[in-house]
Amino acid sequence: GTGADNDLYINQAIVFIEDAIQYRSINHRVDSKSLWLYRWYYSRTCQWILSLTITVILALAFIEKPSSLTVTSDVRYRLPAWNPPCGLTESIELLCFLVFMVDVSVKSYLIGWEEFWKNKWLMAYILTLIVSLADWIVSLSFFCTEDVRIRRLLRPFFLLQNSSMMKKTLKSINSTLPEMASVVLLLAVHLSLFTMFAMLLFARTKDGQQDKEWMGYFRNLPDSLTSLLVLLTTANNPDVMIPAYSKNRAYSIFFILFTVLGNLFLMNLLTAIIYNQFRGYLLKSVQSSLFRRRLGIRAAFEVLSSMKETPANAQQSYASVGALLQVLQKVEMDSRCKQAIMRSLKMCSCDQLSAAQFQKLFEELDKDAIKQHPPSPEYQSHFMQKMQYAFGHPYFGYLGNVVALANIVSICVVLVMDADKQPSERDDFFLGAINCFFILYYMLEMLLKILAMGLKRYLSYPSNRFDGLLTVILLVLEIATFSVYGFPHPGWRPEFMGLLSLWDMVRLVNMLIVFRFLRIIPNMKFMSLVVTTLLDLVKNLRAFAGILVVVFYAFAITGIMLFKGAVVPLGNIRYIGNKLNTSWPFFNLLLYFKEKCDFMALFGHFQAEVMYCLLYLLSVNLICRWAKIYFVAWWLISSVIWVNLFVALLLENFIHKWDRRCHREPLSDIEYQRTVELMFRDVLEEPTEEELMEKLHQHPHLQLCR
Amino acid sequence: GTGADNDLYINQAIVFIEDAIQYRSINHRVDSKSLWLYRWYYSRTCQWILSLTITVILALAFIEKPSSLTVTSDVRYRLPAWNPPCGLTESIELLCFLVFMVDVSVKSYLIGWEEFWKNKWLMAYILTLIVSLADWIVSLSFFCTEDVRIRRLLRPFFLLQNSSMMKKTLKSINSTLPEMASVVLLLAVHLSLFTMFAMLLFARTKDGQQDKEWMGYFRNLPDSLTSLLVLLTTANNPDVMIPAYSKNRAYSIFFILFTVLGNLFLMNLLTAIIYNQFRGYLLKSVQSSLFRRRLGIRAAFEVLSSMKETPANAQQSYASVGALLQVLQKVEMDSRCKQAIMRSLKMCSCDQLSAAQFQKLFEELDKDAIKQHPPSPEYQSHFMQKMQYAFGHPYFGYLGNVVALANIVSICVVLVMDADKQPSERDDFFLGAINCFFILYYMLEMLLKILAMGLKRYLSYPSNRFDGLLTVILLVLEIATFSVYGFPHPGWRPEFMGLLSLWDMVRLVNMLIVFRFLRIIPNMKFMSLVVTTLLDLVKNLRAFAGILVVVFYAFAITGIMLFKGAVVPLGNIRYIGNKLNTSWPFFNLLLYFKEKCDFMALFGHFQAEVMYCLLYLLSVNLICRWAKIYFVAWWLISSVIWVNLFVALLLENFIHKWDRRCHREPLSDIEYQRTVELMFRDVLEEPTEEELMEKLHQHPHLQLCR
Repeated sequence: GTGADNDLYINQAIVFIEDAIQYRSINHRVDSKSLWLYRWYYSRTCQWILSLTITVILALAFIEKPSSLTVTSDVRYRLPAWNPPCGLTESIELLCFLVFMVDVSVKSYLIGWEEFWKNKWLMAYILTLIVSLADWIVSLSFFCTEDVRIRRLLRPFFLLQNSSMMKKTLKSINSTLPEMASVVLLLAVHLSLFTMFAMLLFARTKDGQQDKEWMGYFRNLPDSLTSLLVLLTTANNPDVMIPAYSKNRAYSIFFILFTVLGNLFLMNLLTAIIYNQFRGYLLKSVQSSLFRRRLGIRAAFEVLSSMKETPANAQQSYASVGALLQVLQKVEMDSRCKQAIMRSLKMCSCDQLSAAQFQKLFEELDKDAIKQHPPSPEYQSHFMQKMQYAFGHPYFGYLGNVVALANIVSICVVLVMDADKQPSERDDFFLGAINCFFILYYMLEMLLKILAMGLKRYLSYPSNRFDGLLTVILLVLEIATFSVYGFPHPGWRPEFMGLLSLWDMVRLVNMLIVFRFLRIIPNMKFMSLVVTTLLDLVKNLRAFAGILVVVFYAFAITGIMLFKGAVVPLGNIRYIGNKLNTSWPFFNLLLYFKEKCDFMALFGHFQAEVMYCLLYLLSVNLICRWAKIYFVAWWLISSVIWVNLFVALLLENFIHKWDRRCHREPLSDIEYQRTVELMFRDVLEEPTEEELMEKLHQHPHLQLCR
Repeated sequence: GTGADNDLYINQAIVFIEDAIQYRSINHRVDSKSLWLYRWYYSRTCQWILSLTITVILALAFIEKPSSLTVTSDVRYRLPAWNPPCGLTESIELLCFLVFMVDVSVKSYLIGWEEFWKNKWLMAYILTLIVSLADWIVSLSFFCTEDVRIRRLLRPFFLLQNSSMMKKTLKSINSTLPEMASVVLLLAVHLSLFTMFAMLLFARTKDGQQDKEWMGYFRNLPDSLTSLLVLLTTANNPDVMIPAYSKNRAYSIFFILFTVLGNLFLMNLLTAIIYNQFRGYLLKSVQSSLFRRRLGIRAAFEVLSSMKETPANAQQSYASVGALLQVLQKVEMDSRCKQAIMRSLKMCSCDQLSAAQFQKLFEELDKDAIKQHPPSPEYQSHFMQKMQYAFGHPYFGYLGNVVALANIVSICVVLVMDADKQPSERDDFFLGAINCFFILYYMLEMLLKILAMGLKRYLSYPSNRFDGLLTVILLVLEIATFSVYGFPHPGWRPEFMGLLSLWDMVRLVNMLIVFRFLRIIPNMKFMSLVVTTLLDLVKNLRAFAGILVVVFYAFAITGIMLFKGAVVPLGNIRYIGNKLNTSWPFFNLLLYFKEKCDFMALFGHFQAEVMYCLLYLLSVNLICRWAKIYFVAWWLISSVIWVNLFVALLLENFIHKWDRRCHREPLSDIEYQRTVELMFRDVLEEPTEEELMEKLHQHPHLQLCR
């Protein structure tokens, strides 16, 4: 019947508009039941469960057998890590797999059979699940004693496939690979030619005293290659040339040439290539998001317009306002936007909307959310008005900053004075007294500001929220201190009482005060620019960070598999080789039988450290050739490529931001909530009517009337 | 008389055209005598003498008293450096000063009195000369025993003022300073806040065992600041956090936060800012060069057109072709360009040239120099034609590359096999024999190529010249080897004879063979792109390199002055403090009582090493607070800012080049000689007629008729 049809159309419109809001593809089934399933699948609860499952399965590595999640990294003091009984982590894993199976079946059903065969990600998802389950069965049948667990290596895939942003980024990185490979090839040629030169230059001589260079670094081909590779990372930079250099200064020319060509030119060339490739990346991704949004809106319009029988001779199709209102009530969207659309819908007194009008209505979604702060209270009393003027004035805020600075300086002075004193000689009176005074001032400042601005207006500024929260915490801490240790007086050195010693309390208060000093950031123009750029960058970087986590995880698991027992410990190294098996994968990444290397794992993406560790490992001859390849691959991916990607993104973001800053005047009271989309608004191209309609006609499930 | 007037006009036109060719300013005196002086001053000889003088005065530092220009850097084996008698370097200096005085007076005279007062560089030049002379007199009156020699610090200024490119670059860097300063300020805030945090976090505890972190790195404010500053350079990256990390893994969060914020964000932000500022730098500089060229040509036209009395009612002015021919014959310019202009002048059969025609004639100057290779010889004999076809074919070149690769591989194999042998066990027969074979092949290849292409065509390719030269050298070396040591045979281990031992000869030959392998570069597309980019970069980088030399020199001299005797040596350090005074300034830069630091000086601009050295110096507490400031300044300027400038320029160059590569098809036989001007030709804006005329009317010495 027409009523059921109309209901279906309304539901389709709702889903299409939600797709537009979330920048989702509209290529899914559009019958009533599928729509219900689709909305259920993309409901907050379902997506939250899915994210939780992914987190849980990734986090399993922290408690699984080779794990070292302990407080200290020092093997001497460390208690043996908790070893979960066989079956515990496995049953959690099974639960996760079940959720993933539901996920993959719903996804496959929703996009339809034809689309499914084109979607490589879904196929890979199913394959991964099958392999994981098979591995799980093998694991259980061995009662968890088997060594190789392939499914661990596959886990990061679940993270990858769940984020469209990460998939897009991966595609983008993939297209840069050929050029990166060229530079890496160039680096390899550079390295091998210089290795041959080095072996000829620093050959063994008949005089044993003269060939220190040969002894230390260029004994044979693998040694020479390693020495120069490590030189490329600057980890062994001065050391490798010292013996030759003390013999003759002219030898330095070889090393200078190598370093200048390799480090300064080729490495930076990599940056240039990656930046060049990523220059348009952000813009392109925002452009395709815009297209999805317009397409979703247009699809909603088309289904709404096919609801009513329009005259056959009408050139344009129209959507009825009533139906749209019905749709809007059911759509899940930001309430501000919804209200704005409702308002403009009421203002236009027509009851039919053309496609352009319809599209225009939803442009509210793209707009800056202009944040209006609530008004200040209006006081009757003349005195109160004066107070309000005084304490609402920016100068009062500046005074607060000056006082905070004074507090910092006073803490600094006390720290410098107390630096060389024994803890028992230290007198906490002075710090206690001044902090007490300053915290009272902060409380007063907060109260006066609330008085002047009203609580609502006060809380509407993020800087005030930050300030107020810290002030309250400081106040609570101070009151707790006084209630436990009494008021400060000269020679105030009470014994340890309660949860924290007085000294720890004072330190905590001081740290919070230092942290509170960050409130000056919005007052400094350049600083706030930088901070907003960095925050934007963090948003854009999420996809990259995700891919980094994926790579990290895979490398960590591979590392555990590769080096289990392969390391033969030397006598002078404290940490014994078989400890390796009981270590936490993330920290285990770069082997941890030396503290440095253990720590390094976390900083895996910093060139210098990784290579420092690598150098150490190579120098003690603890690792075999495979390990060398593993480490070189890790260095290339995490340090060279990832850092360069980061620099490229930072350049891109910063240059856009900087150009914008020069274009527009700063607005005093209105704060824009910037999004990446808004940053590029001036350069984005609106998709044309033809493009949209062509795409709509290609929709695999939606049959448009015309 | 009119004849003398005409002569003057001709001379003016000559000078203006030469100005245009050299991109010089035309704002100089234009009377006959000044013109003669101007041409004399800018003649090759004069400019060469000036450059030589600058080189000599800068090079004086290598032989002046605190100098260590010796073969080895190891103080134990080093002979005392030669100490020139008092008066020798001083008299050379006086000669240089005299040349500079002539230089500054000619320059001042030529630009005229009015312009002189506006030219700050000239004033500074004069001031520098006066101060230097005064210092020189003081020096002589103390019989060279005085310690502080200000004039040494001023020397790099002579280099700076002589290059217009360097002055322009300096101006450009200067305009970037405010933003760089903002980031540096941000870094300082970052550093100081984290220092306070660190001091509170790693405070001295009552349990002496627990405060290793405090003991090692955060004892007091200067220590903490230094630790974190060095952490910012990643020099002490793992070490600084190990004590805290072994206590509790959570402490790593502090260091991770610090490193991510400081190194990854703020440092790269500096790159972004510098790149953003320098994005337009190359384009702007090329644009202003173009303006100077057009202005010079236009000025020449104007003076030539005022030679002849043109009808008063003529709207346009004309220059006579005869006068232009006269001018062209006397102008010093590239003969190819001159001929091309002459040719097109003869082709247009008019005897009057309008301004546009005149300008168009000289566009030849901007054009690509299309290099036509001479034709191959034409042989009569059918056999010779076949030979020519076979050996002129690119495949023959590829075969040569394959043979070169085979040679490299064979050398590599021998090196690997001989790696662990004692020198006395080594048999040079195998290497000698294969090298003999390969070198014969190279000779044959060269001869066949010359046969096929003819000597002229062969030599017109740079890759052939490179190839041929190396082949000839290899041949000579091989013949020399055989004539001294006889032909190779098994067990060929002759005694040392002549200049070099057989082993050294073989090594030299092998190195040349490896070097010769670089001939493959033009055959690989991406490689040749990279190499041409790098060569372009080197051209553009000359100004930056010059400024770096200036900074380097100033820092070196300051270092000598600051640290003379200020270093108190510890017992366990071999090199005793007062050796410092006898060291060569460049190497002395970062103090050299430890080998590492001595070497580091050369690599001063590489962050890691400088800081490695700095760290060492700080850790042994050898240097005072002033030295810290000196080193931090050096690190900031040479490592942070200069490396970032380099990256910015590389990005700029590479992205332009890359874009161009995509635009145009590679031409097979025609090689373009690219210049920076040509790279930007598509985006350059031609100056308008009005701009040129306005500038001409502002000329301080040239009075145009209209």
